[in-house]
Amino acid sequence: MFRSIITGTGSYIPPFIQTNKDFTKQVFYSKGHALTTAPEEIVSKFRQITGIEERRYTTEDLNASDIGAIAAKNALADSGVNPEEIDQIIVAHNFGDVLKNTIQTAAVPSIASLIKHTLGIRNPGCTAYDILFGCPGWIQGLIQADAFFKAGLAKKALIVGTETLSRVIDVHDRDSMIFSDGAGAVVLEFRETGPGDSGLLGSSTQTHTIEEVNYINMGKSDFPDSDPNVRYIKMNGRKVYEYAMTYVPAAMKDCLDKCGIDISAVKKIFIHQANEKMDEGIMQRLFQLYGINEPTENVMPMSIHWLGNSSVATVPTLLDLVRKEQLESHRLHAGDIILFASVGAGMNINAACYRY
Amino acid sequence: MFRSIITGTGSYIPPFIQTNKDFTKQVFYSKGHALTTAPEEIVSKFRQITGIEERRYTTEDLNASDIGAIAAKNALADSGVNPEEIDQIIVAHNFGDVLKNTIQTAAVPSIASLIKHTLGIRNPGCTAYDILFGCPGWIQGLIQADAFFKAGLAKKALIVGTETLSRVIDVHDRDSMIFSDGAGAVVLEFRETGPGDSGLLGSSTQTHTIEEVNYINMGKSDFPDSDPNVRYIKMNGRKVYEYAMTYVPAAMKDCLDKCGIDISAVKKIFIHQANEKMDEGIMQRLFQLYGINEPTENVMPMSIHWLGNSSVATVPTLLDLVRKEQLESHRLHAGDIILFASVGAGMNINAACYRY
Repeated sequence: MFRSIITGTGSYIPPFIQTNKDFTKQVFYSKGHALTTAPEEIVSKFRQITGIEERRYTTEDLNASDIGAIAAKNALADSGVNPEEIDQIIVAHNFGDVLKNTIQTAAVPSIASLIKHTLGIRNPGCTAYDILFGCPGWIQGLIQADAFFKAGLAKKALIVGTETLSRVIDVHDRDSMIFSDGAGAVVLEFRETGPGDSGLLGSSTQTHTIEEVNYINMGKSDFPDSDPNVRYIKMNGRKVYEYAMTYVPAAMKDCLDKCGIDISAVKKIFIHQANEKMDEGIMQRLFQLYGINEPTENVMPMSIHWLGNSSVATVPTLLDLVRKEQLESHRLHAGDIILFASVGAGMNINAACYRY
Repeated sequence: MFRSIITGTGSYIPPFIQTNKDFTKQVFYSKGHALTTAPEEIVSKFRQITGIEERRYTTEDLNASDIGAIAAKNALADSGVNPEEIDQIIVAHNFGDVLKNTIQTAAVPSIASLIKHTLGIRNPGCTAYDILFGCPGWIQGLIQADAFFKAGLAKKALIVGTETLSRVIDVHDRDSMIFSDGAGAVVLEFRETGPGDSGLLGSSTQTHTIEEVNYINMGKSDFPDSDPNVRYIKMNGRKVYEYAMTYVPAAMKDCLDKCGIDISAVKKIFIHQANEKMDEGIMQRLFQLYGINEPTENVMPMSIHWLGNSSVATVPTLLDLVRKEQLESHRLHAGDIILFASVGAGMNINAACYRY
């Protein structure tokens, strides 16, 4: 049967490092008042919960479309596929190109069109579009490409996740320490495979919007002198945490059940790098759904300590790092069952199971 | 065989009418200088080319997600489908929610999530995402929904196009007269059909980005005192016109060829309402590709005279108006072959052929 196979991966690691210590100069506000807790204490508590020690920002001259194109080029080179044979360029993001020192987001033309331009692809049959689906947008792009393959619309796709969250944060909000810039990409191809061959095995997607729709949204700064017309990325951290802990493990299990695969067969789980404590909690609960108290050792590669949360970019970047043996103690072998999973604004959750 | 069938349509016609005369008070700029041509002459020439006499803006309290939800509600009511049975909510837009008197675009959470919230749909299996694909985004949403059906991902979809272009225009640019607000939606269902039954028959999509990527983009105002950090929707009108005249007729013919349908069988063409002269020129060239000098009489319903160009919203709004017999001298009958076509930022073109 035909299956979707990842034939190349690429990423862009921004060069500028912002450490936690850099934030100790910042005055944080909550509900219109400056926080009186010592900055060192705020930062220390932040690190304990999120696991983030530093994060990376792109240089001033590069926008989301530029770094997305770099990740895409790397993935194309890794796959060896002729760029002119790509049928779909699917780009997940949430804010498009945000020029440094402005907070105006822009995606006209689409980021996918800008990336296609930078790649120099002439083939007009290569459809380029953007998907907005919160942090799970990149995994959803993978699921959509697989559907286009099955429907006969395409045979080769480039799926990119790119975001410059450093440009939409409220510097007076502690949550600004979470967010970072980054880009990751894969080339996905539809090929005839045998029963044990690699390929995408199945997926699960959920959208919750009744109570949850504004757990992550755009809102005003708590800094009293801020421009009331400017809105920043805002998160109800406690609600997001509870939401993720409730629904993500179930979606991951649903995905594995659809594929007829038991948790014991899963070798690596590439989960959205949102918050270390939360990701560890999700793992605990996932394994508990199978009556197992402790997750498989070394099942969850993490990059959040040094890369922060770059939204749509975390999962493809993590995959690229592990695939290219750049994360110590994490290796992939042919035939390994891996699971991708994400959660974010919408609120959206997805999971996809893949035989490497 | 199973086909995608439009079982309901809906639209939102904004209440506020801005006439061409209203623009005669405006000073237009080009290349940093105020135009010296009499305002009445500018407006008169504009009407001759575009066909636009007035356009509609939504009220201050409503954003793109709000008017999209109204169009969606109308489409759901028209179809009679239970909203909880919708598997995919696909929303095409380019600017998301732009609060009146700010120009900050926002789509976190996605406009699809906000519409799902407003519709009160609880089913977590109803995936809600946004597609950015310039003006052809709504037709592309239709093509994507059809692919999801064929891949077994979904059976019922709601496809919405919504935009408030009045909030991203540069009032010192003559092109600001083109753009308007609006929303349209359809319910699409996958059903078993016989050979002559209605349904989506085929489609064609093209993305050109080598020379074309910035024919429509975001740029600074030509007004000398404007804030250099603010960017507005900008269009190279001549380039867009030449591009559309070259490629849109070919894409429409490619779509019909794929479906094995001759132009003589086409009863109505629902084309993106971008510019009347351009749309008429595209029709001429399409029929000329078949050696026919004059397009079929009354084949192209138009709404641009009173609705302007509302981007992704023009095609579904036009379909809704004709389907509900609100456009004089245009009627649809069971079995009619109709063609959808659009062109816009990216640059993107698409066409879809449907048996009504």
